[in-house]
Formats: sequence, structure tokens, C-alpha cells
Amino acid sequence: MSERLTIAVDGMGGDAGPAMVVPGVAIARERNPDARFLLFGDEARLKSELDKHPQLHEPCEIIHTDVAVAMDDKPSQALRRGRRTSSMWLAISAVKDGDAQAAISAGNTGALMAMAKVILKTMSGIERPAIAAIWPTVRGESIVLDVGATIGVESQLLVQFAVMGEAMARTIFGLERPTVGLLNIGVEEVKGLEEVRVAGRLLKESGLPIEYCGFIEGNDIGQGVVDVVVTEGFTGNIALKTAEGTARQISEYLRAAMSRSLAARIGYLFARGAFNVLREKMDPRTMNGGVFLGLNGIVVKSHGGTDGLGFASAIDLALDMAGNDLVARIARDLEKYHTHSTSEPHEEDKVEIL
Amino acid sequence: MSERLTIAVDGMGGDAGPAMVVPGVAIARERNPDARFLLFGDEARLKSELDKHPQLHEPCEIIHTDVAVAMDDKPSQALRRGRRTSSMWLAISAVKDGDAQAAISAGNTGALMAMAKVILKTMSGIERPAIAAIWPTVRGESIVLDVGATIGVESQLLVQFAVMGEAMARTIFGLERPTVGLLNIGVEEVKGLEEVRVAGRLLKESGLPIEYCGFIEGNDIGQGVVDVVVTEGFTGNIALKTAEGTARQISEYLRAAMSRSLAARIGYLFARGAFNVLREKMDPRTMNGGVFLGLNGIVVKSHGGTDGLGFASAIDLALDMAGNDLVARIARDLEKYHTHSTSEPHEEDKVEIL
Repeated sequence: MSERLTIAVDGMGGDAGPAMVVPGVAIARERNPDARFLLFGDEARLKSELDKHPQLHEPCEIIHTDVAVAMDDKPSQALRRGRRTSSMWLAISAVKDGDAQAAISAGNTGALMAMAKVILKTMSGIERPAIAAIWPTVRGESIVLDVGATIGVESQLLVQFAVMGEAMARTIFGLERPTVGLLNIGVEEVKGLEEVRVAGRLLKESGLPIEYCGFIEGNDIGQGVVDVVVTEGFTGNIALKTAEGTARQISEYLRAAMSRSLAARIGYLFARGAFNVLREKMDPRTMNGGVFLGLNGIVVKSHGGTDGLGFASAIDLALDMAGNDLVARIARDLEKYHTHSTSEPHEEDKVEIL
Repeated sequence: MSERLTIAVDGMGGDAGPAMVVPGVAIARERNPDARFLLFGDEARLKSELDKHPQLHEPCEIIHTDVAVAMDDKPSQALRRGRRTSSMWLAISAVKDGDAQAAISAGNTGALMAMAKVILKTMSGIERPAIAAIWPTVRGESIVLDVGATIGVESQLLVQFAVMGEAMARTIFGLERPTVGLLNIGVEEVKGLEEVRVAGRLLKESGLPIEYCGFIEGNDIGQGVVDVVVTEGFTGNIALKTAEGTARQISEYLRAAMSRSLAARIGYLFARGAFNVLREKMDPRTMNGGVFLGLNGIVVKSHGGTDGLGFASAIDLALDMAGNDLVARIARDLEKYHTHSTSEPHEEDKVEIL
């Protein structure tokens, strides 16, 4: 694209606030020299951080506000106290007003989603937005959604997630026909949650141009069996965090094993390069960023506890999606889906399966 | 204990049947020289395997049957075709009849649970049995339940799982007061599924002698934050398989990293001992075995695809629980719970939380 992309940044989000956000912007700026950034938050704190990165003066603009959403605010509290004034609200509003092509925050997830829904509104045809995560696999990367925005499984929601996730996979992985699977507890069609089975039937019979591959199980995610893994938010969040926990656990085993004898320590020295490659592969910071899908605008949530490097990954993701106009792609796909699905009687499907 | 424990073994279960089961019994026998085994299945096939292990002639008895449940039978099919005749049915019946103190099968999970419910019946006060898994953690081991027997979350079920899992942790870990947590998607009390929140309230206010520690998240499981992790079967199954998949994924990364350069390969040679320790720690075979809890008898499910070493781990688990009389312990705890909970108006609790 020819025009410069602008990212609206909640400068106060995350456990460390500006001290993490600004270094993250600096790293992202190096990788994306054309990008611009609007930084919302406490001007004095943001400015003192920006002064450490003179190269950021040109691409960054500070928009001052005193109000910041706290990490432990309930969404309703955040909406009451931070409406129209908080750095989080203003960053999202910049997307709505066309001043930025995506917003990013490392702040409170619930508050961010609540504000994003109020400001950007859900897309036509979407009941509830989802959070999509990039999941590293042995074959590359997959998209998993929802990882925590929706609680409780409904077959129509799962189908909408499939449509949105598929569009995102085409956008960020550049795939023509990404494969899509439904997370379940058995690959047979008779197994698992009824709403998941109904969603499978809908996807199979919808006539949508989606490469639907059926059910997958938890162990298939990391093997990259499909490009898009569709699940409900409770299970998706637990799967994501369980995988993160397992990776951390194995890192601890590995560290302990490599320091338990002189021979192991010598071996470690020889294989240091290999360990560095492994460490990079397992570094959660390279996969940071949950994408809110189903809104009229792009919002990316960074981990609150990440550092500059992790925040930069989330910015990369936001730039990637903004540059490829993800929202317009999803809107087109949803239109196709609704044209198809109106000729598909949902109730009948349910009866057939039961 | 003084008397010899007897394990009823479904000799035909698992992908490899007798060729996996009998070597597994041989390994378990070495570790538990007092144990006896009843092997149910095709006599000719079992005998030809037993002949390779002369030391098994004394402790093993073959009970012949032609009928075996197939790995892909639906539970209803298995019950129709295998009732009273299949190796799986007969192994469970041996527990009911007092001929064995536990049954074990590497066969079809759904069929095994269906038969176990018909033969052994659920314990008084238990609505639905659960499957408990042993989960390796950085601090040792934890119990996670349910990992696939129940679908759909209900607060009363979760409380029953907590009681049963706690009794199991006392039995197999020898802990006086194991800690118990509910798997949720946030540690704050306002977050997550309503039924999980209600279960948390019930556990907190029940007056039960359970060390209830509140909500935990997916990444806390591998850190060993609590001894017993309580969740509903759909999520538990996906969490378990996701962790297994992540471990396998990282093993693949590690293998690739260690063969990518000469220095890495030399390092690997030096650190081989350390890698062996790591491999053992990550070996899913050492943690094989899902325990059916809530039945009037002990049934252990082994992975279908495991080998003799894995099957032996599951036998160890069955012996451990049978020797410590897990079922009687759970029965006592359930009685305490129901004495407590009758004075605890459930509906009121629900209203308070909503």
C-alpha cells in the first residue's frame, strides 16, 4: 500500500505502562519505518520515555490524558470512569474516527473489549466478537479463536468464528484456502458437545468456500493440523494458557537438566547456538497479541506483562492486518455466509443430528 | 497390607492387544512381586505372549473369551455386543464379584465407562463419574479431573469432583491436606463460567475439610499450584491433550535444534545424560492411566496406543489405589459432604452470586 499506516497506542496499558510501551514502539518502528503512532496517555511520562528514542519524534504524536483504566477495573467500572477520557477509550476512538487503522493496548482485556464494542460496534451479522491468537506449531503458525471473549458455546457463534478466522488466516498467512477445524474431544462425529457437532454440520453443509476439515483434538493444535482452530472462549483460553504453562514447565526441566552435571554444562556450551534457536522458537513474546475480530475496526490486545519486544510483535500484527484491510475482507465473507445460510434451515439441522 | 492384591486385566484392549498388555503385566509384576493378575481374552493369543515370560505363570490366570470390544465401537454397541461376554465386561465384573481389587483396560474409553457404570454403579451421592489423570508438574504431580467423562458444566458435579479428587490425592500422594483449585479463565471471583463460580462458592462455604484455594488458570496446572485441579470433562480433556501436544511439539523443536550443526551434535553427546533425564520426565508413558472415580470399584483406563512400559504405569496406579482402599475413602468423604451440604441451601447461594 502507498499511504502510511497509523496505529493508535494506549500508552498507559500493561503492567509497566509507558516504560514498556515506548520501547515497544521503538522496536516496531525499526521494522516498519513507514508506520506512524498516536500515543494516548500521560504526556510527561510518555515524553520522558520518548526522549530516550530520538528516532521516534517524527513518527509519534502524544495525545495527553490523565485518565487510565486500571488492570483490575471491572469492564463496567472502566466504562463508567474511562468513557471518552481514558487512554484506552481514546485509542479505540481514533480508529473509529479514521485517524488510525488499528488500536493496540496492553491493558485490561475485559475493559478493552467492552470499550471496543461500544465504540466500534460489532459487524453486521456478528453476534459477539472473538479474540484470535496466533499459535506456534511445528508447521508454522495457526490461528486459534476464541481465546476468551465469549463464554458458553453456541453453534452459530462457532460458525461466525470460522468465517472470521479463515479471513484472518488468508490475510496474515497469505494462504488462498486456509484449513479450518473445530476443537472437540474426539474426531468422530458422534462425540463431544452437541453445539460443536451442530456447528460442524453447518460448516459442512453451508456451501461456504471454507476448507472445513472436521473436528480436531487438543494435541492437534501444536501439530498445525489446521490453519484455523475454532472453539468457544472458555475452552480456548484454558487451552492457550495450558500450552503456555507446559512450554514454561519444559523450559524449567531443560534448564535444570542442563545444569545438573559438568558434562551437561559442557554440552550446553557447545550447543548454545541450538539452544538460542530453541529459546527463540519458544519465546512467547514473538507470538504476542490477541486480535479482536468481529468489530468495525482492528483492535489488538497485548499481554499485560510483556516487554518492549513482545509489544512490538503485537504492533507488527496490528500493522499487518491494517495493511491488508482485514475488516473489509471479513465483511465480504460474512455477506457471502449470510446469503448462503438463509437457504439453510438451522432448526432442521439440529433435529437431524439429535 | 497383608493380602495379595489382584488386578483384573482386559487382555484385548489397546491398539496392540495381548502383545502390549502381557509385556506390561511383566514389567508391573517386577515392580510389584506380590500382585496377581486375571487376564481376560483370547486364550491362545494371551498364552503365546505369556510363554515369553515364564515368571508370569504363577501370578497370572487366563479367563478365556472370544468377544472383544472394538476401539471404534460406540458405547451402546459395545454394551449390546459385549455384555457379559467381552474381555472388558468380564474384567470389570471381577471387581464387582470381589475376585479383583481393580480392573484395567487400554480399550475404548466410552465403552469402558458405560460398562463400568452398568456393572459397578455410581456411588451414593455421585451423579456422574469422572476420569482423573495424573499431571506432571514442576513441583511433582497433580490430579486433574474430569478429563473426558462428563460433558457440560454443573456446579454440583464440580463439587463432587473436588471431593473425589481430594481423596485420591491423599491416597496416592500421601498428602494430609491436598490443595484444590477450580480451573477458570481468571482468578478473580467475578470471572468465568457461572457454574464454576457457584461451585467455588459452594466449596468455600461448605465447611468441608477441603483445602480449597480458589480459581486457577491453565498455566497454573503445570506449575503445580494446587494438588487437585477440578474442571468439567470437555475442557479438561482439551487441556490435557493440548499439554501433551505442546510437550511433543517442543520435543520436536529440541530434536531439530540439536541436529542442526556439528557443535550442537557434539553438545548433545556431552549432555546425553541430561537429555535422558529430560526425556524420562517428559515421557507420557510414566504418567499413563486415567482413573474412573465415583464408581463402587476401581477402574483404570490406559492409553490405547501405549506400550508395555506405559501399561505397567497404569497397573502401578491401579495397585496403588486398590492397596489404599480409595473407594472406601471417597465414600466416607462423600458422606461428610452430604451431611454438610444438606444444611447449605444451594438455591440461595446461586441467587447471592447472580
